[in-house]
Amino acid sequence: MNIKPLGIRVLAKKLEEEEERRTAGGIVLPDSAKSDKVVRAKVIAVGTNDKIEVKVGDEIVVSNYAGTEIEVDEDKLILVKSTDILAVIES
Amino acid sequence: MNIKPLGIRVLAKKLEEEEERRTAGGIVLPDSAKSDKVVRAKVIAVGTNDKIEVKVGDEIVVSNYAGTEIEVDEDKLILVKSTDILAVIES
Amino acid sequence: MNIKPLGIRVLAKKLEEEEERRTAGGIVLPDSAKSDKVVRAKVIAVGTNDKIEVKVGDEIVVSNYAGTEIEVDEDKLILVKSTDILAVIES
Amino acid sequence: MNIKPLGIRVLAKKLEEEEERRTAGGIVLPDSAKSDKVVRAKVIAVGTNDKIEVKVGDEIVVSNYAGTEIEVDEDKLILVKSTDILAVIES
Amino acid sequence: MNIKPLGIRVLAKKLEEEEERRTAGGIVLPDSAKSDKVVRAKVIAVGTNDKIEVKVGDEIVVSNYAGTEIEVDEDKLILVKSTDILAVIES
Amino acid sequence: MNIKPLGIRVLAKKLEEEEERRTAGGIVLPDSAKSDKVVRAKVIAVGTNDKIEVKVGDEIVVSNYAGTEIEVDEDKLILVKSTDILAVIES
Amino acid sequence: MNIKPLGIRVLAKKLEEEEERRTAGGIVLPDSAKSDKVVRAKVIAVGTNDKIEVKVGDEIVVSNYAGTEIEVDEDKLILVKSTDILAVIES
Repeated sequence: MNIKPLGIRVLAKKLEEEEERRTAGGIVLPDSAKSDKVVRAKVIAVGTNDKIEVKVGDEIVVSNYAGTEIEVDEDKLILVKSTDILAVIES
Repeated sequence: MNIKPLGIRVLAKKLEEEEERRTAGGIVLPDSAKSDKVVRAKVIAVGTNDKIEVKVGDEIVVSNYAGTEIEVDEDKLILVKSTDILAVIES
Repeated sequence: MNIKPLGIRVLAKKLEEEEERRTAGGIVLPDSAKSDKVVRAKVIAVGTNDKIEVKVGDEIVVSNYAGTEIEVDEDKLILVKSTDILAVIES
Repeated sequence: MNIKPLGIRVLAKKLEEEEERRTAGGIVLPDSAKSDKVVRAKVIAVGTNDKIEVKVGDEIVVSNYAGTEIEVDEDKLILVKSTDILAVIES
Repeated sequence: MNIKPLGIRVLAKKLEEEEERRTAGGIVLPDSAKSDKVVRAKVIAVGTNDKIEVKVGDEIVVSNYAGTEIEVDEDKLILVKSTDILAVIES
Repeated sequence: MNIKPLGIRVLAKKLEEEEERRTAGGIVLPDSAKSDKVVRAKVIAVGTNDKIEVKVGDEIVVSNYAGTEIEVDEDKLILVKSTDILAVIES
Repeated sequence: MNIKPLGIRVLAKKLEEEEERRTAGGIVLPDSAKSDKVVRAKVIAVGTNDKIEVKVGDEIVVSNYAGTEIEVDEDKLILVKSTDILAVIES
């Protein structure tokens, strides 16, 4: 099964909170902001719009207020407009 | 009888909750988000606007906040702007 | 007497609830959504804008949130922007 | 004294409620919608914008939510943007 | 001292309520609408924008919701965008 | 140290309330409107946008709802978009 | 690890409150406005949009209402649209 985002939307897999917090040198979200401000995710698929600045495999930072969450085979995915992606994390 | 959506609107038949949840390998919506975030539906008709990215037969994911629900012959249909469709599900 | 809608507006006669619900094979609006979501109506007159997609005689589905209701000679009419018409019903 | 509406605005004289309700064959506004939805008025003057679709003397239907009411020599006038005029009544 | 409005703004002197109400043949604002709907004023200065439709000396009708009031040497002035001026009163 | 406003923003020094009220022939703000409607200020720096209509040294009238206040060396400064400046005061 | 802001976004490191308040000749934010109006920060990275007016190393003043805060290795960073940056501080 394959989920194809439309237009400028991007499909991304949310990283687990533990994974987020323990990654050495990685982004540590402040406890207070944790649940309602941003989330890290990995891009799985991108829509057809050529203004999308991210590609499959990119790790992104997304506002928690943006996008819609769905669940596929235990994974937590989000569908988010690429203009609502705040940044890409390069390792 | 035939319902023809106007402009960029799309007419789709909502999939039953049970069908949604039990489909092997399919999208499983989280219980908490279930009733107020997204819904799966099958496209029945599309409007005249050539920017519509879906076609008849496509399975789509739509935000529950988008579109208007109508009922025809026991079927639950939704009329939704194609720009409010989040993704297409390819099997 | 004649009521001429302006611009992209359309004048339509609302169909009676009974007529709506009992029409064989017709749209049956769910009880819960009945009073505050959509209404069926027949187009009586259209404005001057050439982007209007409906014509006199068309049966349309309109959101209850759109348009303004007036009453002429016992008939319930609505004045609605054509962009707020959700669909046309072809019999 | 003369009141000249600016831009796309139109100046119109509101018709009395009695006159509205008793006119044979005329628009009868439903009691419930009466006070807060629409009003009939006669165009007295139009602004300079050439997109205005009504002319002096036209009877119009205007939403009660649109426009600003003023009173001149006992007459109740409204200043309303022509794009907020719903329809013209032709007799 | 001179106050020069910027852009499409206009500076106008509010007419006193008494003067407004007693002027023979002039606009009489309804008591109920008096304090929160419109005000008459005389244009003192206009901004640099060439789309401004009024000139110095014009008597104007302005919504009370528009503009900002300032006081200079006992006079009540308003700074208002010319697009918020409803009408000009010609005597 | 130097604060350079960006884009269409302007940096201005707020004039003291006393100075505002006692200036002979100057603007006297009404008591009621005093704290929440307008403020006088002197332009200290302007952004790079060439649509800015004020220059360094100009005395301006600004809505209290516009701009952001900062404090530098005891001075109260405001950073405000030039389109939110209501007028310039020429002496 | 590297965080790359997207589009017109800028990544900046917030300056500590103490550092802000004690800097000789620097901006002193008023106590009352302190926590909910502006913040000083140093630009770490800029997005791809060529309308961004700041560069890496610039000290900026940002509204507290703008941007999203993240934490990386104990540093408090903000991701903010460059159009929401109020000013640059030149020393």
